[in-house]
Amino acid sequence: VIITLLSDFGTRDAYVGIMKGVILKIAPAVRLVDLTHGVPPQDVVTGALLLRSAVRYFSSETIHVAVVDPGVGSARDPLVVVTESGILVGPDNGLLHPAASAMGRREVRRIEREELFVQPLSRTFHGRDVFAPAAAHLALGMGPEDLGPLLAELQPLELPEPRVGAGEVAGEVIHVDHFGNLVTSISSAVLAEIGTSETVVVVGTGHEVPLVGSYADVAPGAPLAVVGSWDQVEVAVRNGSAARELDAGVGTPVLVRTRGKVMRSQDEEIGRD
Amino acid sequence: VIITLLSDFGTRDAYVGIMKGVILKIAPAVRLVDLTHGVPPQDVVTGALLLRSAVRYFSSETIHVAVVDPGVGSARDPLVVVTESGILVGPDNGLLHPAASAMGRREVRRIEREELFVQPLSRTFHGRDVFAPAAAHLALGMGPEDLGPLLAELQPLELPEPRVGAGEVAGEVIHVDHFGNLVTSISSAVLAEIGTSETVVVVGTGHEVPLVGSYADVAPGAPLAVVGSWDQVEVAVRNGSAARELDAGVGTPVLVRTRGKVMRSQDEEIGRD
Amino acid sequence: VIITLLSDFGTRDAYVGIMKGVILKIAPAVRLVDLTHGVPPQDVVTGALLLRSAVRYFSSETIHVAVVDPGVGSARDPLVVVTESGILVGPDNGLLHPAASAMGRREVRRIEREELFVQPLSRTFHGRDVFAPAAAHLALGMGPEDLGPLLAELQPLELPEPRVGAGEVAGEVIHVDHFGNLVTSISSAVLAEIGTSETVVVVGTGHEVPLVGSYADVAPGAPLAVVGSWDQVEVAVRNGSAARELDAGVGTPVLVRTRGKVMRSQDEEIGRD
Repeated sequence: VIITLLSDFGTRDAYVGIMKGVILKIAPAVRLVDLTHGVPPQDVVTGALLLRSAVRYFSSETIHVAVVDPGVGSARDPLVVVTESGILVGPDNGLLHPAASAMGRREVRRIEREELFVQPLSRTFHGRDVFAPAAAHLALGMGPEDLGPLLAELQPLELPEPRVGAGEVAGEVIHVDHFGNLVTSISSAVLAEIGTSETVVVVGTGHEVPLVGSYADVAPGAPLAVVGSWDQVEVAVRNGSAARELDAGVGTPVLVRTRGKVMRSQDEEIGRD
Repeated sequence: VIITLLSDFGTRDAYVGIMKGVILKIAPAVRLVDLTHGVPPQDVVTGALLLRSAVRYFSSETIHVAVVDPGVGSARDPLVVVTESGILVGPDNGLLHPAASAMGRREVRRIEREELFVQPLSRTFHGRDVFAPAAAHLALGMGPEDLGPLLAELQPLELPEPRVGAGEVAGEVIHVDHFGNLVTSISSAVLAEIGTSETVVVVGTGHEVPLVGSYADVAPGAPLAVVGSWDQVEVAVRNGSAARELDAGVGTPVLVRTRGKVMRSQDEEIGRD
Repeated sequence: VIITLLSDFGTRDAYVGIMKGVILKIAPAVRLVDLTHGVPPQDVVTGALLLRSAVRYFSSETIHVAVVDPGVGSARDPLVVVTESGILVGPDNGLLHPAASAMGRREVRRIEREELFVQPLSRTFHGRDVFAPAAAHLALGMGPEDLGPLLAELQPLELPEPRVGAGEVAGEVIHVDHFGNLVTSISSAVLAEIGTSETVVVVGTGHEVPLVGSYADVAPGAPLAVVGSWDQVEVAVRNGSAARELDAGVGTPVLVRTRGKVMRSQDEEIGRD
């Protein structure tokens, strides 16, 4: 059994190592894989997007523990979510919702089997005290029903949805990756609705970049858009940082439009249907 | 058997991966867990504190290798320390001392079985050449007595101790974590001596923050103190960085005092006993 | 079987975790070791140097996957390189060349067994879609000949070579590590050609530092040169950063010369051969 870990804990401290110690003390044979611990502090949306982007590549035997938990110690519920393609463990603050939907959610339970928790239970580190032991016991074969009662729902997360118009899609940057690539809210499926030939992508108010097949289709230093590894439209600068060179970040508007559309729009929007 | 690794090597280079290669070549079945490699360069005290904070969460079968080693290549001894709850391997410069005390120290040995070392033995990377192979052989079942002779002592580490007065404890910040939380030298046990009701915490010369139960007990952006996951008093800003917002760092004085004490102190210290 | 991973993916995203998911889905029993994911973006030379520095410490059963791949999606070949001391997997852009030479290259093959790839095959993330599944199938026992046809060559990488003169060697900084140590192009073997007694090292235009045996041979804060853990001449500042304090970086010239040579050179180069 694999347990993956995702958090905003960073790697300067021993917090991640401590969670692994708790897990391995209970379930010594489990395989541990770090998804990332570089989620910006308390950034539930980024954590949720990264989690959703990763889960599909793991077997359905996998238990994914995700901890971005600004409400730790408050009344927010600790959850286990059983899906068709794996199990999710983490706080009920929206973090698990996009992944749960993508994975085929089956049931949601509140973790309340307190005798499994690390004692004394802290009010600041449930990754260690609640989620790690819950995941470890699931890995050992404990049924989710032994962790706590069913809940009707888990807290949703509002993610930016692209708006499709005639010959264009309006979206925004949802993640800036390590390379400075701008992952947008516009999926390849939405892109297909307007067709991808003769398409340009406008970032923010000014930059117009071509939609191409791969980074190598433009010259080094030139901007481009591709359907990237998230299966979303992604804006990049070849061998450079689009975030820096296009001065963009999470929330920057991104418009995908057909070249014809551009001409009409330059024509003072005459004939816009 | 688990081997944990803690160092100041960072993750930009292949140093940590190389140590793992050396270990796995000798002991292919061992489990490896990174505690952290983000100890600030040559910062033995931070390394020692992080190591001590983590070891209690691992089984007593675990071998902890810690390398923050500014004296590498000099006469400082390479050590194996056997304790009631695991084995420590690393340089004799104070790094292992706090963990060894917390774990119930049994015996200290100088590693001098040179035929086990990676050859040619470097004078700059004993993590790879001395500590990794020593730990790997211990994991395979070699007895500590086969690594070298008993030593009477290991080098101590001077850690800041809080001073308890009437209705107050004076300590300092000993670690700033990834979130900017300020971990102090004041443990929950010391705190209990003055009682925790009506308690406030003063950071540096100016900031007075309430001692609460969890981050969620104050408004977002507000400062607070809690007994944190280290089981020490910790100063935080909810969803923010206390280090930045209170302009504090390692060594900043922290005073915990009862509210009554505050009033007396405001009253020009009249009645101070 | 061990699979190591080296990349420029950083650790902020889930890219590395995703590669591990792909590998473990195919080969659940494989051991995974990160060499580093901190190669500067698109820096093939640094990636190649770090890879070469690490491979010798792993058993010859190991499969090393390296992905620094600015040409992803273009015509550059995906490779498997079989050597006497392990297998290399990665793009044909020079990244694998220095390690392949050091490991005793036997054969080079183009990976083109498309039914093994993650589908739909992206044009931006072959680490996930091509290299991870290829390595996983090799780990399961697939022969390299089943991945694709032999190639005559792999793309070479031009690395800076030191120039040996009378009583001196001229090289340059090839890597700055996490500590700010300056790893140079001058190996211990080359150094032996001029002898190491009475030797000084000049960094850039101004700084002359002594060649010593270990960091501890100089006072804290003082600069020094040693034969470091790469088995190359390395310039450091004891308990400090040579990169910062000597204002040096990759490409900075470094001259090793005998003390006699220095005197001659001070003597307006009279007698220079």
